[in-house]
Amino acid sequence: MDEFEFIAKYLAPLAGPGGLGLKDDAAVLKPSHGKDLIITKDTMVEGTHFPHGHYGAKTSGKLLRANLSDLAAKGAIPVGYMLSIVWPHGVDESVFKDFSDGLAAIQKKYDFKLLGGDTTSSRGAMVVTATLLGEVPENKMVRRNGANIGDDVWVTGTIGDAYLGLQKVLGRPIDPKPKGTGMKHFENAYFRPEPRISFGDHLRDYASACADISDGLIADAGHVAKASNIKFKLNLEAIPLSRPAAEWAMGDLSRIKTLVTSGDDYELVFTAPSTNESFLTEASAGLQLTKIGTVVEGSGVEVVGSDNTLIEFDQAGHKHF
Amino acid sequence: MDEFEFIAKYLAPLAGPGGLGLKDDAAVLKPSHGKDLIITKDTMVEGTHFPHGHYGAKTSGKLLRANLSDLAAKGAIPVGYMLSIVWPHGVDESVFKDFSDGLAAIQKKYDFKLLGGDTTSSRGAMVVTATLLGEVPENKMVRRNGANIGDDVWVTGTIGDAYLGLQKVLGRPIDPKPKGTGMKHFENAYFRPEPRISFGDHLRDYASACADISDGLIADAGHVAKASNIKFKLNLEAIPLSRPAAEWAMGDLSRIKTLVTSGDDYELVFTAPSTNESFLTEASAGLQLTKIGTVVEGSGVEVVGSDNTLIEFDQAGHKHF
Repeated sequence: MDEFEFIAKYLAPLAGPGGLGLKDDAAVLKPSHGKDLIITKDTMVEGTHFPHGHYGAKTSGKLLRANLSDLAAKGAIPVGYMLSIVWPHGVDESVFKDFSDGLAAIQKKYDFKLLGGDTTSSRGAMVVTATLLGEVPENKMVRRNGANIGDDVWVTGTIGDAYLGLQKVLGRPIDPKPKGTGMKHFENAYFRPEPRISFGDHLRDYASACADISDGLIADAGHVAKASNIKFKLNLEAIPLSRPAAEWAMGDLSRIKTLVTSGDDYELVFTAPSTNESFLTEASAGLQLTKIGTVVEGSGVEVVGSDNTLIEFDQAGHKHF
Repeated sequence: MDEFEFIAKYLAPLAGPGGLGLKDDAAVLKPSHGKDLIITKDTMVEGTHFPHGHYGAKTSGKLLRANLSDLAAKGAIPVGYMLSIVWPHGVDESVFKDFSDGLAAIQKKYDFKLLGGDTTSSRGAMVVTATLLGEVPENKMVRRNGANIGDDVWVTGTIGDAYLGLQKVLGRPIDPKPKGTGMKHFENAYFRPEPRISFGDHLRDYASACADISDGLIADAGHVAKASNIKFKLNLEAIPLSRPAAEWAMGDLSRIKTLVTSGDDYELVFTAPSTNESFLTEASAGLQLTKIGTVVEGSGVEVVGSDNTLIEFDQAGHKHF
């Protein structure tokens, strides 16, 4: 199966009208009136961002989920995407099908379509890149630089589950072993993080700044603090852990530090004026929202334990090279 | 130098207003009123699309040139781009500088800016991906599927020089050796193809269909023929060769076949009603335009020599896997 057959059989059915059947040099998008276009791009490299040999739906799905999470952090709704795939040599056609099935499922769930892209191959690692395009009402993108002194700091969902999922995927021991469905919970957090797209309307209404958590909660909070030129004071005990993650951590400080710095959570960390607290609580609907700190004067991220003791971190999050 | 330092020092200065200093999760683009957005994406893999170890300006420049060529084929003007880089390990900072200098030069020449992207690293080959965004007046994108029976087939510039440039780059013999500046001409054609952006206005006014030539003239003409559901009848002797390429080919049929199927030309192949011929000739200004055939009933691409003899091709162009 060559490039053109792969595109015609597996990718063309995923294309929206602007993709022109993936038969042209470029895609065309007719921007909606009164909207700004929000654009995000993520690359995943085999062996760095996903495990060796995972060429199917888990990887294609996660690529879109990670990009959707960036749009979610900006309060945007997805409209389409461009996809680039560098296939390793010798991949079986069943893998092509599984990969495109993974794309199709996410497209359907979040209601957007493929616009175009590029497909090639390499003797080396698989590399996949998606450029997602989303829309927000004009001038309503939620920025990183809008946090104000006195704002509350919030986080969606729970933190650190993806780290434990990755340990499972890499075949490393998780001690103590999680009970019941705990292991499945970790794996799902790693492969199928839930981009918080549906929270976008509320984020635009109530948040002053936001980022998604890909490098680790402390590191991404730090990006918001830096862009906003303020300091985050976070309460370590307030950071929400899932029950199986809390059972793994057993209250051990170094384990908790690992969870809040390891990344791949794809939850949102955001700030909001404290007067918005009751609106946020109302708006959250099934989504867990947790207040983890406040915005103060200064720079960086300060994490305190019980009794207001300062907790030191050697590294706030993942660095890419 | 880590990812964040590289971005801050070398990429942030290339960003336009919509790139938000490359300090946010996403870029924002305010689409112009009355325009459609045209989007194209190209990936280049070390060892496949560019020679091993070429990590600097030649590669970054060519990545943008190849993407610009796709926009040019659609009659679009560039407005911005998203960039993804997978760096190999251990690259020296001087390479980072050279790579970003290459981007800066193309941005300046064609008047568009960096919006955002993703930077990571890998133990394997370098992989670079750009998603370019351009604009055309509403509903004015030049498609591949608009060729009509009776139209003329045109090509910009000359064909096959990039093939000879690649032989030089790979250290393969070019026999006979080109005279004077011929070798430099071939190398420039390979590393610095000229995207035909400035011809876009005329293309939208006079062309019925267009594609850029990346896979090879015969293959890309075939894509237009297929999309338009017609047949191209091309005259091999009319296909324009540069003087050094013609001197290399020496009229030898197999050499000429190599030139017209080898790709990487980034010229445009387009169709236009024959009534537009004098307008096109006027519009071309410094750009070489050559009529190489006509659109007839049927499918595929038929190439004829002198005396209308049919010329057979084993392979029309480059396949990617």
